[in-house]
Amino acid sequence: MIIVAKNEAAAQEIAQKLDQHDPIHPVFVHQNRVALAGIKNISAADQQAIADQVEEIIENHHSAIKSSRAFHPEDTIIKTKHSVIGGKHFVLMAGPDSIESPEHVLEMGQDVKAAGATILRGGAFKPRTSPYSYQGNGEAGLKAHRAAADALEMDMVTEILDTRDVDLVDQYTDIFQVGTRNMQNFALLKALGQKRKPVVLKRGMSATIDDLLNAAEYIAAGGNDQIMLMERGIRTFDSKYTRNTFDVGAIPVLQKLTHYPIIADTSHAAGHSEFVTPLAQAAVAAGAQGLMTEIHNDPSHAFVDGAQALTPAQYQVLATTVRKIHEVIA
Amino acid sequence: MIIVAKNEAAAQEIAQKLDQHDPIHPVFVHQNRVALAGIKNISAADQQAIADQVEEIIENHHSAIKSSRAFHPEDTIIKTKHSVIGGKHFVLMAGPDSIESPEHVLEMGQDVKAAGATILRGGAFKPRTSPYSYQGNGEAGLKAHRAAADALEMDMVTEILDTRDVDLVDQYTDIFQVGTRNMQNFALLKALGQKRKPVVLKRGMSATIDDLLNAAEYIAAGGNDQIMLMERGIRTFDSKYTRNTFDVGAIPVLQKLTHYPIIADTSHAAGHSEFVTPLAQAAVAAGAQGLMTEIHNDPSHAFVDGAQALTPAQYQVLATTVRKIHEVIA
Amino acid sequence: MIIVAKNEAAAQEIAQKLDQHDPIHPVFVHQNRVALAGIKNISAADQQAIADQVEEIIENHHSAIKSSRAFHPEDTIIKTKHSVIGGKHFVLMAGPDSIESPEHVLEMGQDVKAAGATILRGGAFKPRTSPYSYQGNGEAGLKAHRAAADALEMDMVTEILDTRDVDLVDQYTDIFQVGTRNMQNFALLKALGQKRKPVVLKRGMSATIDDLLNAAEYIAAGGNDQIMLMERGIRTFDSKYTRNTFDVGAIPVLQKLTHYPIIADTSHAAGHSEFVTPLAQAAVAAGAQGLMTEIHNDPSHAFVDGAQALTPAQYQVLATTVRKIHEVIA
Amino acid sequence: MIIVAKNEAAAQEIAQKLDQHDPIHPVFVHQNRVALAGIKNISAADQQAIADQVEEIIENHHSAIKSSRAFHPEDTIIKTKHSVIGGKHFVLMAGPDSIESPEHVLEMGQDVKAAGATILRGGAFKPRTSPYSYQGNGEAGLKAHRAAADALEMDMVTEILDTRDVDLVDQYTDIFQVGTRNMQNFALLKALGQKRKPVVLKRGMSATIDDLLNAAEYIAAGGNDQIMLMERGIRTFDSKYTRNTFDVGAIPVLQKLTHYPIIADTSHAAGHSEFVTPLAQAAVAAGAQGLMTEIHNDPSHAFVDGAQALTPAQYQVLATTVRKIHEVIA
Repeated sequence: MIIVAKNEAAAQEIAQKLDQHDPIHPVFVHQNRVALAGIKNISAADQQAIADQVEEIIENHHSAIKSSRAFHPEDTIIKTKHSVIGGKHFVLMAGPDSIESPEHVLEMGQDVKAAGATILRGGAFKPRTSPYSYQGNGEAGLKAHRAAADALEMDMVTEILDTRDVDLVDQYTDIFQVGTRNMQNFALLKALGQKRKPVVLKRGMSATIDDLLNAAEYIAAGGNDQIMLMERGIRTFDSKYTRNTFDVGAIPVLQKLTHYPIIADTSHAAGHSEFVTPLAQAAVAAGAQGLMTEIHNDPSHAFVDGAQALTPAQYQVLATTVRKIHEVIA
Repeated sequence: MIIVAKNEAAAQEIAQKLDQHDPIHPVFVHQNRVALAGIKNISAADQQAIADQVEEIIENHHSAIKSSRAFHPEDTIIKTKHSVIGGKHFVLMAGPDSIESPEHVLEMGQDVKAAGATILRGGAFKPRTSPYSYQGNGEAGLKAHRAAADALEMDMVTEILDTRDVDLVDQYTDIFQVGTRNMQNFALLKALGQKRKPVVLKRGMSATIDDLLNAAEYIAAGGNDQIMLMERGIRTFDSKYTRNTFDVGAIPVLQKLTHYPIIADTSHAAGHSEFVTPLAQAAVAAGAQGLMTEIHNDPSHAFVDGAQALTPAQYQVLATTVRKIHEVIA
Repeated sequence: MIIVAKNEAAAQEIAQKLDQHDPIHPVFVHQNRVALAGIKNISAADQQAIADQVEEIIENHHSAIKSSRAFHPEDTIIKTKHSVIGGKHFVLMAGPDSIESPEHVLEMGQDVKAAGATILRGGAFKPRTSPYSYQGNGEAGLKAHRAAADALEMDMVTEILDTRDVDLVDQYTDIFQVGTRNMQNFALLKALGQKRKPVVLKRGMSATIDDLLNAAEYIAAGGNDQIMLMERGIRTFDSKYTRNTFDVGAIPVLQKLTHYPIIADTSHAAGHSEFVTPLAQAAVAAGAQGLMTEIHNDPSHAFVDGAQALTPAQYQVLATTVRKIHEVIA
Repeated sequence: MIIVAKNEAAAQEIAQKLDQHDPIHPVFVHQNRVALAGIKNISAADQQAIADQVEEIIENHHSAIKSSRAFHPEDTIIKTKHSVIGGKHFVLMAGPDSIESPEHVLEMGQDVKAAGATILRGGAFKPRTSPYSYQGNGEAGLKAHRAAADALEMDMVTEILDTRDVDLVDQYTDIFQVGTRNMQNFALLKALGQKRKPVVLKRGMSATIDDLLNAAEYIAAGGNDQIMLMERGIRTFDSKYTRNTFDVGAIPVLQKLTHYPIIADTSHAAGHSEFVTPLAQAAVAAGAQGLMTEIHNDPSHAFVDGAQALTPAQYQVLATTVRKIHEVIA
């Protein structure tokens, strides 16, 4: 449940009174609001004890309380070295699917930077459907990615697959990415909750909006509030022409329910490069605060997912168009 | 299969040679193209017989051949008395969910016309989940709708539910609408295929893209090529916050596959008025050539689906914004 | 809402007091129960007026009230000339997908009768995805089907696609079948509600349990209570190996919610003959009160859906096995 | 691809000739068959080089080749201390959802053993949607679970969530369980592939059959062939009456495609205890080689998922009925 206190001091007072020293049900305070984790209602006695400090009590609230706008009404703004993410800001993340070589990621980074991207994406650990597909080049990839980002003065975002790799990846990246298959890898989410570095959390293929918010809450519960949520397409009955169904409606729904920045990955949703740009346009028109896009200078020879990669020239057009759309709806 | 002839005369010649006088497998000609309905390949002998006229043969084509861009590469443009639909044109259809009274539909019509709509929507026959819900006011509704459209110099679009009502509805409407529950009511589609009046065909709740094209083909096979396809949200695992999942990706996919205008109904997709406008923005950004939107001046007292109705003022904002987005991507 | 009266006389009394002469909200009586269609609650005054007759009031009931076990606790048993359907009875319906010729349907009928089927299925009007596929042979098929059923002393069930054909089909068939694509063709359901002949209503591809009950209610509201519901597979994200996902859980769920017999069509669910029998076994083990199965003596030359047809010999095995399973769970 | 050799010696010869010393594309041999991982076809030269040893070449095979019946035609039979799993054998796994106390798991174990179960399930690490829900009691739970299994002479199966816990859980359990949310946690699958202990792999909520086979292949690729696959319900558009849609058709489909034992968990599929038994009956009738079932002596006070737990008495009935069904179809 969430208690709206009359002011910040009252919120602190309420929190002290209700703190039950139970690690499973911690009490969180944000400005004039107090969240009681995992608790739906409080007793009449408790209500009376805090009555003087209370403006409103929101009972039976969804369990993702730190992630809720009812607890944290203003937008979360995430500031990295080279980017400002959330609120009215608009951010472009782009790069190759996988880190193929130091030269390649640098070249791709130059192209996306030229188009306005400030965050360089790339995968060193790749979650592939088959064990016999290319699995990424690991730490060598992280190093090459870091070097390219530094050289270009961009931020780096890369996927993390294994709790045992958290410290390793942490040495290199600016932003952790949790992929769709690991959205409910709770051990991983808890480990990232112990970091103080932004996390992009991708929606699972069949995750409901509530599932996504609860997954974010695993990170937030650990104290890491630097979270971005990413819509990347869901699994439905029709996947003949697009790899997934891009759930554009999730964007305004999430913006109503949570304060985290909402980013769209239309590359994985589309699965075919020809639909990446229309979907990106749609995402931004629906209010997405950023885009993640895969590019490749030679898609047919990309190590991974070449079919959905835009060429640098196509990405340039995308970036120009979506900025205009963002201005229209700003 | 589809045969691309060297020119229009050659196409006619091919058609004559291959016409097999079989009503189930008719031969269609469009400019320099010949479509053989329900036939995947032709014999070597037939191929040889037409070799001189042929530029290219597209074998194993999807069964919706008259609806295919491979048969009809240029956009279908539908011209009604007050609207031009398709291609680079952009059209707004709006009005109340159901025709409540002559005065009400006229008032709603004035509001949507003021916002730029040229087609007045409204339902006289309502397909309701429960037999005990309001089922529409039938012919009285059609009359009121027609009168309002005439008074405002707008086109009229209304839903048809029953093959027995086709002639009745035909007396009043400018455009027939086939609803999501009847997308595969093949008797109804065949009956509309015999008319020479535009049809808006809504995608079924779990219809694949191919199902939708084949449903359109039922109308086209009868000789009625004035078809619009409407994306209105599909049924997926998550319907807590929006009534359906608006499949924005279907818009560019359909525009690649077919030549018919693609319209979006974001009212039924959203189910809640607060999400109708972001989805409409997304639809237009993805390339939709028109929007259908439900409005009501007093949503909480609407006969049907008030929760998803925009007020006239909200609709005015929507119309202004989407026109700007349409300009950006034009 | 549903009112449980103290006895049958009390129910009649309640019905008279509450009858509001509103065709949209009729009052139905079944033994000691009164259903108020489309009404969630009654006023305190009304409650007081009937208090002496009332044992229990079920407010906020689902809109499919005539179809509900809360209104009609005992199983509906449907008796046709050659079959008893519902309750503890178990019925086999089988035959070819489409009526190919008088001889063929007779031969197939002999085979399924030998295996224990009492109802001969077959389609004269076929709802095909493409307009260029075989659409059935219409009245000639109905005649051949009727003749075979009569010769074999079996009941006949056939699909109806168009409200304009209701009287025609009624002349021949013993049981109407409404297919998955027409589950929400409300005009057709209303027309069948005016008949006094059993109807098999197939679940729509993406129809929820509630949708199916409401569709049945359209028939029941017209006064036709001879309804069977049929689970035939739903549309989900995976259709590579089976045509649809057979929702076996719908069987016990429906049996809890409604009193109508629940039949399973595992031919359309499976889509491939090798999976028809395991699914049929599962359906019966879950409590299905009957099965509908497609057979063909030469599947590779069947006019429609040969891939899913069992041979007569395979059907014999299926019938034997499922009867044993039915005994185990009886 | 898979090569069927003329005999076992020929298979070894082929493997040696084709072994390309590439860890990503290893060569596997099973009896007279050779599987080339991640390779769709071989060159004409290679084909010629092995022509004398080859009986058949299966090109373009699905990537899950070690898991395929085409590579390993006979059923995998898994033997643990107290159970034989796979083939014509039928196994019951049951127990509480979570390990609540040493006494409770022992009592529950006695009940399920009395009903015929040989494998005691229970969770010490619980993957909960919300971080504020009970997360299991960790190693204390493992110890209590092990003690109960030993005392009852049963096998132990428990879920593993984190790669960092593999060695810890390995010290206690007889069978690892990978839950639905971790089906594509490839790091975890790889870690379990290094063990030589059986793994139950649950199908992900929206995993296709192919996804499931590929996930199993991650374990098999590491050399651990002791795999069971578990159908536990998928996510579809309808979850009002059952928590998930139990995909009973997956059972015969998987049995055709793979040699691993197929087990059904109908507790999580149903979500409500009243539907657990009908679904279990269906699963066994469709061919499932085992069942996993949650029980609790006091469901309303269960730490986790009480709504879906059977009482010991209900479980006894289930076990008796499903064994009879298994005999019918044996």
